[in-house]
Amino acid sequence: MKLPENIKPHLDIIHKNILQSIPDDFPVSLSEPIRYFLQMPGKMIRPLLTLFSSKAVGGNMEDALPAAIAVELFHDFTLIHDDIMDQDDLRRGLETLHVKYGDSTAILSGDALIGLAYSQLMRVPDTSLNAVTKIFTEALVKVCEGQALDKEFEARDDIQLEEYLDMIAKKTAWLIKTACALGAHCGNGTPEQVDLLTSFGYNLGMGFQIQDDLLDFVADENKLGKKVGSDFRMHKTTYVTLKYRRILQSSAQYRSNYPADISKYSSFAEFQQALDELSVIPSGQQEADHYIQLAIADLAQVIPLESGNPLYEITRFLQRRQY
Amino acid sequence: MKLPENIKPHLDIIHKNILQSIPDDFPVSLSEPIRYFLQMPGKMIRPLLTLFSSKAVGGNMEDALPAAIAVELFHDFTLIHDDIMDQDDLRRGLETLHVKYGDSTAILSGDALIGLAYSQLMRVPDTSLNAVTKIFTEALVKVCEGQALDKEFEARDDIQLEEYLDMIAKKTAWLIKTACALGAHCGNGTPEQVDLLTSFGYNLGMGFQIQDDLLDFVADENKLGKKVGSDFRMHKTTYVTLKYRRILQSSAQYRSNYPADISKYSSFAEFQQALDELSVIPSGQQEADHYIQLAIADLAQVIPLESGNPLYEITRFLQRRQY
Repeated sequence: MKLPENIKPHLDIIHKNILQSIPDDFPVSLSEPIRYFLQMPGKMIRPLLTLFSSKAVGGNMEDALPAAIAVELFHDFTLIHDDIMDQDDLRRGLETLHVKYGDSTAILSGDALIGLAYSQLMRVPDTSLNAVTKIFTEALVKVCEGQALDKEFEARDDIQLEEYLDMIAKKTAWLIKTACALGAHCGNGTPEQVDLLTSFGYNLGMGFQIQDDLLDFVADENKLGKKVGSDFRMHKTTYVTLKYRRILQSSAQYRSNYPADISKYSSFAEFQQALDELSVIPSGQQEADHYIQLAIADLAQVIPLESGNPLYEITRFLQRRQY
Repeated sequence: MKLPENIKPHLDIIHKNILQSIPDDFPVSLSEPIRYFLQMPGKMIRPLLTLFSSKAVGGNMEDALPAAIAVELFHDFTLIHDDIMDQDDLRRGLETLHVKYGDSTAILSGDALIGLAYSQLMRVPDTSLNAVTKIFTEALVKVCEGQALDKEFEARDDIQLEEYLDMIAKKTAWLIKTACALGAHCGNGTPEQVDLLTSFGYNLGMGFQIQDDLLDFVADENKLGKKVGSDFRMHKTTYVTLKYRRILQSSAQYRSNYPADISKYSSFAEFQQALDELSVIPSGQQEADHYIQLAIADLAQVIPLESGNPLYEITRFLQRRQY
């Protein structure tokens, strides 16, 4: 499934403005690595949500553009710093920034992107500026908390599903809800519309992240563009492993037939079979769908749910994506 | 020379509020390293400048406290990330954060401090909030630029004195001028007062940094609390080496008697003797004093220059400090 064609012109505007956000007189040791990273755009879901949230409340997409750029630059900062912490080598098909330019440059590029993100935000009309700056700042703190919890979880083997959901609420869903909230503010939405789109973004973000975790176990490798099973091989705790353990807890028979410790599985295929026998993936899919349904219910109170409506299309795209 | 005794209660208030800026529900993997860092307070020059700038324009110090805390947290973020990039092991007499907790934790702690700094800033009264957020954001971008230039200079041997002054203007003076500008805004200073205190902060910052560079060559080790000559041994380009080269350029005789390449000196004592013969330190002291005089001239247009006035005392303290 693809994003609808009518979204493409907006993607081009976002990408152009993102590249223009680097000041012309920036030191080359900052502009070059940042340009390297920004030239490989992602799906741009977050800035699209900002623009279309503004439109959904009857506002102007132009007024929401600085906030949309700010959200994407913020997202880029998190990716660059997370890649250092996670020692990841590849991002969007290219070498990660720290592999290509070294840790120091990657740290500083991420820091500068926070500054450039706020700089873009400062272009929001003064009437909305206090509100959006407060929301944006809260997101910065929460996303750092989410990343801290994610790193803490790597050293623990007793993580509960609820703790995991709290972590992804901060690490992933918070910025997605912020993207929507900023758009609603920039479009001068009513307080009720702002609340609904904030809730929409949160639920969408939760559904998106659970879906993302499921995909690493079931995706079509050709469509995903990378090997499935990397979370399994890295012994990473995700929604899938926690749901697996939660299902084991529900039955003594399960507990005697399946190991609680996933590292006991000798192969990914063997673990996939256990997931299949225990219906872990359909059960997770149900929870992801539940969040998406909540998101759609929020959205329905703001705009009519018609095919072609961009927020509705993005939601359905994220729900059905296989990559 | 010490800061006057009447400043101490303000230092205590700042330190208490800085520790309280860490949210109670922060993940322990963030609150512990941040608390570790914040427990060893520095001289707190920047937040003091914010408080007293507010007072100087007839404002309330209480109203400037959130901005003062924001400035100090911002400064702490730069120290933590710079220490990683510079691979420094000691800070304020203790292990640097990245040595004690690892690079990942130090990166994330710095990021979180940017968020906490902005969170504090959000407590500034709404009437000043837009202005202070814009000034603060510009500082974030400029300080990153300054750090990038500083790192670029490490790989070059053709740096000009003017480039160096531009670098320290961004890396050091910008945050000091921001500290003063924020205080002037929070105290509801007139545009003219804001401009004067901004200029005061810039000149003070430039004088401070040049003085800092000089101290590494001439300080009394007991008062400085660390070995002098570390810049020489690390082959670091600073104001002193650039001024040395600039003086050589003024005379063919100097150029034949003294090597342009400082690494030709076999010992620190030998280089110190050359500095002495060429009057490099007095010449640098003159430039530092020049900036301090400009700062004092700015200040004189805002408040009467009386002994006991805190901004005047801080200026004199920085001018005469030997550590």
